[in-house]
Amino acid sequence: MRPGKSRCMERSAHMALALDAAREAAQRGEVPVGAVVVSPEGRVLAVRGNETRATHDPSAHAEVQAIRAACAMLGQERLPGASLYVTLEPCAACAGVIAAARIARLYYGASDPKSGGTEHGARVFSHPQAHHTPEIYAGIAEREAEALLRAFFQVRRG
Amino acid sequence: MRPGKSRCMERSAHMALALDAAREAAQRGEVPVGAVVVSPEGRVLAVRGNETRATHDPSAHAEVQAIRAACAMLGQERLPGASLYVTLEPCAACAGVIAAARIARLYYGASDPKSGGTEHGARVFSHPQAHHTPEIYAGIAEREAEALLRAFFQVRRG
Repeated sequence: MRPGKSRCMERSAHMALALDAAREAAQRGEVPVGAVVVSPEGRVLAVRGNETRATHDPSAHAEVQAIRAACAMLGQERLPGASLYVTLEPCAACAGVIAAARIARLYYGASDPKSGGTEHGARVFSHPQAHHTPEIYAGIAEREAEALLRAFFQVRRG
Repeated sequence: MRPGKSRCMERSAHMALALDAAREAAQRGEVPVGAVVVSPEGRVLAVRGNETRATHDPSAHAEVQAIRAACAMLGQERLPGASLYVTLEPCAACAGVIAAARIARLYYGASDPKSGGTEHGARVFSHPQAHHTPEIYAGIAEREAEALLRAFFQVRRG
């Protein structure tokens, strides 16, 4: 198998885990976003969905929860070399935590013009105050991530 | 006592609590920043300092910890009408959480041109993606907050 192909399959598998976490979040009544932290060696360290409602914590977005879980497991406050997969473009708060954790690669699904802080709005990584910018790959499994969010909000608004 | 005077004394007292939390953070080897959440009725709901080292959590800045503690105490994920006092200009991550928590008034001490995300860099509240902007009062007890940070980093760099 060519290295390029292998890496692509790995990415799909990790984003599939994030999508599963997003579906589980929806079942709990949380906004369906999921995130996965992967070690530099390719080991899955944490899989989490949004938990703001269950935990009464406005910071408990999927990517923050996954980063906190991975940091707690490793006993360190940074994750150099790690990858983060998340089904939706991170907001400003999450982008700030991604920078603080020194995540090396950020893969995300759907764009979020309404609340995003990565390619929209605050564009957190485009300012020197972020101190760290991951490599960013957008549009991974975008349609599945969008469909999940659309279905969730259609039911709520219906 | 005139209402103006009374409000001013209240602000000083709340920022003094935040400065105490910053000093305690320094004693634990954490970056000396402290934060206080005050209810709409003027009741102190939470006082916290930075805890990123102790908790291995890159999101555990003083203002996020104080918001989490206040939300947990009230069993809700938003704090409408509440005030947040913090000794340093919030970074992008903290500003994002302040917006998500719907904090009504943000009082802060020292400016942070290097890492701030409120009046510097990402300027999180200046984009519609933040969905909420608190009233912002900067420069409260600025000199004390700056002196604490300077002393902390001088010892570390010495």
